[in-house]
Amino acid sequence: MNDYDDLEKNRANFVPLSPLSLISRTAALYPDRQAVVHGDRRYTWADVFSRCRQLSSGLKGLGIGRGDTVAVMAANTPEMIECHYGVAASGGVLNTINTRLDPDTIAYILQHGEARVLICDTAFSTSVEAALKSIGDSHGITVIDIADSENASGGTRLGKMDYEALLESGDPEAEWSLPGDEWDALALNYTSGTSGRPKGVVYHHRGSMLMTMGTIADWQMPRHLSYLYTVPLFHCNGWGHVFAVTALAGTLICNRAVTPKAIYDAIADHGVTHFGGAPIVLGMIINADDADRRPFDHTVEVMTAGAPPPAAILEGIESLGFNVTQVYGLTETYGHTVMSIWQGKWDDEDFATRAKLKARQGVPLTITEDAAVLDTETGKPVPRDGETIGEIALRGNTVMKGYLKNPEATEAAFKDGYFRSGDLAVMHPDGYIEVRDRLKDIIISGGENISSVEIENALHRHPAVAIAAVVARPDPRWGETPCAFVELKSGQDVTEEELITFSRQHLAGFKIPKKVVFGEIPKTATGKLQKFTLRERIKAGEV
Amino acid sequence: MNDYDDLEKNRANFVPLSPLSLISRTAALYPDRQAVVHGDRRYTWADVFSRCRQLSSGLKGLGIGRGDTVAVMAANTPEMIECHYGVAASGGVLNTINTRLDPDTIAYILQHGEARVLICDTAFSTSVEAALKSIGDSHGITVIDIADSENASGGTRLGKMDYEALLESGDPEAEWSLPGDEWDALALNYTSGTSGRPKGVVYHHRGSMLMTMGTIADWQMPRHLSYLYTVPLFHCNGWGHVFAVTALAGTLICNRAVTPKAIYDAIADHGVTHFGGAPIVLGMIINADDADRRPFDHTVEVMTAGAPPPAAILEGIESLGFNVTQVYGLTETYGHTVMSIWQGKWDDEDFATRAKLKARQGVPLTITEDAAVLDTETGKPVPRDGETIGEIALRGNTVMKGYLKNPEATEAAFKDGYFRSGDLAVMHPDGYIEVRDRLKDIIISGGENISSVEIENALHRHPAVAIAAVVARPDPRWGETPCAFVELKSGQDVTEEELITFSRQHLAGFKIPKKVVFGEIPKTATGKLQKFTLRERIKAGEV
Repeated sequence: MNDYDDLEKNRANFVPLSPLSLISRTAALYPDRQAVVHGDRRYTWADVFSRCRQLSSGLKGLGIGRGDTVAVMAANTPEMIECHYGVAASGGVLNTINTRLDPDTIAYILQHGEARVLICDTAFSTSVEAALKSIGDSHGITVIDIADSENASGGTRLGKMDYEALLESGDPEAEWSLPGDEWDALALNYTSGTSGRPKGVVYHHRGSMLMTMGTIADWQMPRHLSYLYTVPLFHCNGWGHVFAVTALAGTLICNRAVTPKAIYDAIADHGVTHFGGAPIVLGMIINADDADRRPFDHTVEVMTAGAPPPAAILEGIESLGFNVTQVYGLTETYGHTVMSIWQGKWDDEDFATRAKLKARQGVPLTITEDAAVLDTETGKPVPRDGETIGEIALRGNTVMKGYLKNPEATEAAFKDGYFRSGDLAVMHPDGYIEVRDRLKDIIISGGENISSVEIENALHRHPAVAIAAVVARPDPRWGETPCAFVELKSGQDVTEEELITFSRQHLAGFKIPKKVVFGEIPKTATGKLQKFTLRERIKAGEV
Repeated sequence: MNDYDDLEKNRANFVPLSPLSLISRTAALYPDRQAVVHGDRRYTWADVFSRCRQLSSGLKGLGIGRGDTVAVMAANTPEMIECHYGVAASGGVLNTINTRLDPDTIAYILQHGEARVLICDTAFSTSVEAALKSIGDSHGITVIDIADSENASGGTRLGKMDYEALLESGDPEAEWSLPGDEWDALALNYTSGTSGRPKGVVYHHRGSMLMTMGTIADWQMPRHLSYLYTVPLFHCNGWGHVFAVTALAGTLICNRAVTPKAIYDAIADHGVTHFGGAPIVLGMIINADDADRRPFDHTVEVMTAGAPPPAAILEGIESLGFNVTQVYGLTETYGHTVMSIWQGKWDDEDFATRAKLKARQGVPLTITEDAAVLDTETGKPVPRDGETIGEIALRGNTVMKGYLKNPEATEAAFKDGYFRSGDLAVMHPDGYIEVRDRLKDIIISGGENISSVEIENALHRHPAVAIAAVVARPDPRWGETPCAFVELKSGQDVTEEELITFSRQHLAGFKIPKKVVFGEIPKTATGKLQKFTLRERIKAGEV
């Protein structure tokens, strides 16, 4: 203790960090600026804030208070944006659910998360109705319908009342209160569950606020940007961009369906300057029908995640006026935590080199305290050689509180002061991380680690291959060898032998798949390949 | 308590917020980028980080640990920048001292702050030597000399060793540790003491980190900016810009003396894009000799504070290629806390209106939770009418911990959940704050509050007036009336009667000064007018 320690926190000098502070400021400072656009609907920041206060107050009227879960099954509509503020301001925890999930998983999430209210867009009424039926009449969940009549496609009302009626029950001037503690839960986001039941990742107010400030700095977001919401808001709260766009008094362009036409229209009609999306979205833009393309004369910044953008995609998209920044992260890290930050000294490299550099996942964000690549056995950092594979381990204020009601998984995820990502990567000499594989997807053959992603990338270069998924297959001599499951492009054909020969041009001998199986590959609701089902087929002796 | 509360902080998901995290990341990510320029000296970010580690480790070798004060009397040189990181990394608290202070005040600060080490540029050896002598041989302070031979002007060494020798005693690979608690003290900054002894304002790591992230967003600072350090780093840690420029891997251009030539040279030679300074610096640029001007073809962003920029200054500086953003803040708020953010809808106003809008202090920064204008009697917000005067009251994470060893002043400053600024202002209908006066400088005449600043502004419009300072003078009929002290421009002349007549064109009758006194006006070391000496002259019956 010293004299400095005598000076204590008080209400004037210590305020819980929370994204809730962002919208009240922006609404006060820019009440008349356009905040949200959805079809013909338009809201200013004053409108949005007023609606969020109504929502918060309406939810309190339904009995929602601190730590109560409010589940939301919605598309990227104004209601979904409002839920990101209104639920938190009521003290509740926002549990956005992937709209593509099956009724069984939805039922699991509603029960595990103990949702007390479910706000549901009628477009998803079929699966939600089935989910509620499977839970039974005693589910005790108050259902509120979003009837997005102008832009939604059918469905039926399941609830006690419509969302607009809930707003009307609330006070547009209701007090806007911050959480008592910045460590309080803000959101509950279930993992996509590539293996087994999804886990409930809990975010806190502090983390979301810091994620916001960090993203503004790292992505260099300008004031009054126009942001198209192509990333589903049910994914890591839309990577938190809703908060950053609010802080900068930008405009959020809503979007029910991500199509090339919708993207080009938003750019041309609403001056969209920023959006996010998986490389598949970039591919859609490149391959858009001529009739769907619209001219624009500014650069559009795209944050992409989920997989490194292939060189051909990068070349195609950048020539169209888009600048791509790749990020890496997980549900457990509020979305992006590592960014492929471009270094000016690379400007003069040839295209192939630049594409390779840009395809690396990158370096820690300003708010990410550390992104290390650790030897999975010793726990020490791997050498910075671009070759030695280790596990990405993360530390910082944008790492989740933990998994809800799952102390075993929480403990396993936090080890020696790091969150273990389960992703395998190398560290390049310049400190840039490049993901190689999921930990459980690595193949160990004759003592060598083989990245299934590397083999998949090689197979993807064959013109007939649409999707390739490589997993380990037990082998009496090598322990494991790579086994490739391949979906062909329609109308294309190739034999197992041809593909193996083709691989030989691109891969070291021990990495060449020993077996190739053709057919459709099962995927999760978010489009991730379900490699565990492929492993089960091998285990069952089918392959 | 609920299930969400079971998830606790651990080393992976909770890291103390601190600017110390910024330099380690930037040095790792951009080791070869130019970080600091000072005359012919050049340091990369790897260099600076290595020197900061040496400094931290060297200070530990001198016995510095958590909560020990390290005083620094230095110009804006590389050493001063390094102290901002190296002292904190040692666990110490950085106490930068205004280099223009008199020996008596320096001695007071060294003793009150209990400095254990004093790092002193030889240029300031005269006043420091006198200060140490007045404390006596038992001062127990280890003195380290900065001998900035290339750029400094004389002085003598007072210390045990040179700064470079201290660095050599340290380990360039020393561990870089964050504070145990983000609430730990980072810096000690004494107020300028316009009345009585200066007070020791304590900053914490959390506040400085949030100040950094907020400033990047609000000033829209770009990555790799070139920043000229015209703001003394002894003022609120140079308003924290050193941390923001580090986060963005920019370049810090050092500067011992702020002259128009130095500013133009830095813009032309080092591509300076940003700097900060009082309106007086803007005036210097406008009035620069032709020989000192250099051409440049980019916009230079200037953050200005301390007084609203007059319309003539704004017009002059903007036509030269500078864009001015006014901010308002105090030592107690880490520097700027309110910013005159420009609204696009004002673009089409005429110049006079735009100048008037730009001269308002503005709105809370993103990280400022609230900037209110409160009635000094009721404590309630004043109406948003642009007329009713109240006290600016601030709340947020960039409000000081408190005043060191001064519980009375700390308690008086924090009242009802706000830090009371002592500055009087009005709130305009659009939520913008405009400062009218220091609380103690308001004149109450016949029950009416009169802003001394408003009268001073009117007097400044007279071509003969260089500086005007207006204070209250007791009046048997009105209670108080305004008394103006005026310094004339050299070679100019005007009579008391002429000035009073002139005032009548610009001021309401009750605001016209009843008396005008000509002569030099005493100023503090930072150039602030010492109004209390004027009041003393009135009290003594001299006026």
